[in-house]
Amino acid sequence: MADKKMVEAITSMEEDFAQWYTDVVKKAELIDYTSVKGCMVIKPAGYAIWELIQKQLDERFKETGVENVYLPMFIPESLLEKEKDHVEGFAPEVAWVTHGGLQPLQERLCVRPTSETLFCDFYKNDIHSYRDLPKVYNQWCSVVRWEKETRPFLRSREFLWQEGHTAHATAEEAEERTIQMLNLYAKFCEEVLAIPVIKGQKTEKEKFAGAVATYTIEALMHDGKALQSGTSHNFGDGFAKAFDIQFADKDNTLKHVYQTSWGMTTRLIGAIIMVHGDNEGLVLPPRVAPIQVCILPIQQKKEGVLDKAYELKKTLESKFRVKVDDTDKTPGFKFAEAEMRGYPIRVEIGPRDLEAGKCVLCRRDTREKIEIALEDIEQEVGALLDKIQAEMLERARKHREDNTFTAKTMQEFEEHFANQNGFVKAMWCGDRACEDQIKEKLGVTSRCMPFEQEKLADTCVCCKKPASKMVYWGRAY
Amino acid sequence: MADKKMVEAITSMEEDFAQWYTDVVKKAELIDYTSVKGCMVIKPAGYAIWELIQKQLDERFKETGVENVYLPMFIPESLLEKEKDHVEGFAPEVAWVTHGGLQPLQERLCVRPTSETLFCDFYKNDIHSYRDLPKVYNQWCSVVRWEKETRPFLRSREFLWQEGHTAHATAEEAEERTIQMLNLYAKFCEEVLAIPVIKGQKTEKEKFAGAVATYTIEALMHDGKALQSGTSHNFGDGFAKAFDIQFADKDNTLKHVYQTSWGMTTRLIGAIIMVHGDNEGLVLPPRVAPIQVCILPIQQKKEGVLDKAYELKKTLESKFRVKVDDTDKTPGFKFAEAEMRGYPIRVEIGPRDLEAGKCVLCRRDTREKIEIALEDIEQEVGALLDKIQAEMLERARKHREDNTFTAKTMQEFEEHFANQNGFVKAMWCGDRACEDQIKEKLGVTSRCMPFEQEKLADTCVCCKKPASKMVYWGRAY
Repeated sequence: MADKKMVEAITSMEEDFAQWYTDVVKKAELIDYTSVKGCMVIKPAGYAIWELIQKQLDERFKETGVENVYLPMFIPESLLEKEKDHVEGFAPEVAWVTHGGLQPLQERLCVRPTSETLFCDFYKNDIHSYRDLPKVYNQWCSVVRWEKETRPFLRSREFLWQEGHTAHATAEEAEERTIQMLNLYAKFCEEVLAIPVIKGQKTEKEKFAGAVATYTIEALMHDGKALQSGTSHNFGDGFAKAFDIQFADKDNTLKHVYQTSWGMTTRLIGAIIMVHGDNEGLVLPPRVAPIQVCILPIQQKKEGVLDKAYELKKTLESKFRVKVDDTDKTPGFKFAEAEMRGYPIRVEIGPRDLEAGKCVLCRRDTREKIEIALEDIEQEVGALLDKIQAEMLERARKHREDNTFTAKTMQEFEEHFANQNGFVKAMWCGDRACEDQIKEKLGVTSRCMPFEQEKLADTCVCCKKPASKMVYWGRAY
Repeated sequence: MADKKMVEAITSMEEDFAQWYTDVVKKAELIDYTSVKGCMVIKPAGYAIWELIQKQLDERFKETGVENVYLPMFIPESLLEKEKDHVEGFAPEVAWVTHGGLQPLQERLCVRPTSETLFCDFYKNDIHSYRDLPKVYNQWCSVVRWEKETRPFLRSREFLWQEGHTAHATAEEAEERTIQMLNLYAKFCEEVLAIPVIKGQKTEKEKFAGAVATYTIEALMHDGKALQSGTSHNFGDGFAKAFDIQFADKDNTLKHVYQTSWGMTTRLIGAIIMVHGDNEGLVLPPRVAPIQVCILPIQQKKEGVLDKAYELKKTLESKFRVKVDDTDKTPGFKFAEAEMRGYPIRVEIGPRDLEAGKCVLCRRDTREKIEIALEDIEQEVGALLDKIQAEMLERARKHREDNTFTAKTMQEFEEHFANQNGFVKAMWCGDRACEDQIKEKLGVTSRCMPFEQEKLADTCVCCKKPASKMVYWGRAY
């Protein structure tokens, strides 16, 4: 059915998942490589997904009182250095600007890898009284981290993201906002991206540089590897003390604020690809599909076919994102291209359908074909998009459940990861030493201590001392 | 009426326009200064204006077939140098990244001041055949130019903008797109920002580095200075030749593409302030006002007042951007703040209004007060916002007309600018020497050769040789 030349170019995911991924991002025209090492061009088909993510995430932010701002992209070195853990975590991977125009700078500036320090510098001037709190600000921007190995969307030297930065009068309110945003992220992933996630807390080893606590949502990719998909950090008053951000409280005493930050990035596009994609290419959840319905006229030169295709587009486009593929490519090529680009529904309409007053809806996710009456198309497409969205989430959830295991002994644990990926739940004593040992022996990291704890055993899988937490472990992107 | 403390802080525009501008951007909380010299924080009230500009401009772009993309923020030095005029124009004002992490880079990278070179590098790989044309791409991003003197929104080292970059099969199509975007910009300024603009072409001296022709829209600020508010460039095939961007045409021969670029920036926010603002602060055109209606309860502790205010908000908020100022500030402070922030309509509602079933709408632009029946509020607010939008444009147009003059001799020309600002129309021979002389003597620059030419005289105002063009001259931001 599909055009050979197009499909042959994709490696199958069973053969080489990494190559399959690279093939899909290129053939679905999501990105292009550039002369700038480690940086990519996000092409229209990729950027349109990001725009849909932005729009829907931003709406959800604003419902919780978030306001958008924009801070400079440069951080003076002295500012980056103010919080010790933070600078240690980020200094090795920032890009440094040393010259402005023809002159060397008096102080070098790094290109922001994240903006905690800038927000602190801003809040220090902007917050005076309890009346100024809370501050619940966010910015959409790009950040730079000088990574050695890069992969499109998953790890690149520059990427797009949003970073929320808040300041509160009390520790409780900061913790509440941290959890509120993590829950918002989890709901967004499930409802919009059709990606189920595990919510939990990072261990001390894995937490953000400068945070008191880092919370995370972790998703499982088709190859059984984990992808950290969003994080939310509670900073306590550590940054506030380092930057001297104080406010006069109701009782007229000066207090330090409590802060949080939280972010999601273009890596979500990588997650969509690796959770939903198949050997024909991309499979987009309807809510982030830039084209939800692609109308494919069959024998388009026959009288009435193209006209009907345009008419259907007109009927559908007030409610859905629709296009007609009226190019002069062969039908086989058009099918293959529609599949590669992951359009959730393909509508096939030819001369015989026209006569019978029917058309065929083809689901991208299951490749099922459904014949419907032309007059019902608006209703049928709406219902089918909802169904696809819901079933994609359920399939992803089932895949994750089928690939979540438990290990009660180190032997079980080692044997599992010697043979496969997936999440493994195991008990842990809370000691860094065991975490390091597990990483060294098995090549896996602690993904999170999930909010939904289970007591699988009484003792740590590694050292056999009393266990304090159940942890999800996995190989991660 | 207005709270003294708040209003005293603004310098009047007649006394010191520059100080008035600085006061407004600070007191209306549009920006804050930062530790990063020449860079600013765009605060929520400022960024929300930018979001409204982005949304409405982006919709207009997409109606003409524009697709959004994202390219890297870094340009390798060798890439920047490929087009000679371009590098000469920009190299003196770029920021250079020389280190990534702890290592010096093999080749230094500049932070993009504009992205022609990156788009060329991308198009070179992306364009093969006439089927790939036209490419009509745009990106929303920030750019950096290492300016020595900076002013919020008008000239800062980093600013936000959109940059469109297109590639076409023919010179005619490129010229058409260049003009199409200039017209789109002009219409946007008039319809959305209520700012009338002069459309025209830049002289050779003033055109963009690397362009064949630069078109511009020029607006007149309240102090009579000009502000270049958007530009659209036709590059011919100059960049295509420098970067070797070729396509196989229908006749199977290889041809170079023809390119354009066009941009608008956060400086538009500066234009809004300087065209519409007054001595009470900001005056926002309804279409870019983040809050269009501010409901001010009078004696809000009296029974029913606050409830009514919330009820009015509920009635209005499906159609308009509304807030209730229910803080415990004094009424005088609230009035002054509503004026400072430029909300187009203030709704005053107190106990007596409640009894009479009325409320008062106060226009920010004219400060007129209109008593209306509460039951008519939705319709009255809608009609009044439209009226304000239309009248703000007409007032700005009248101000520009009142401040547009003609000069037929150098004496007239010199006397004019010795005493005042404004646009002066004068005939020009087309020689760079005269343009330089006028700039040196009068301190003004050629703003544009307007599309709507008039023949004021036969000879150049400067050298008395035959004139080829009428030019708008002015002092510019």
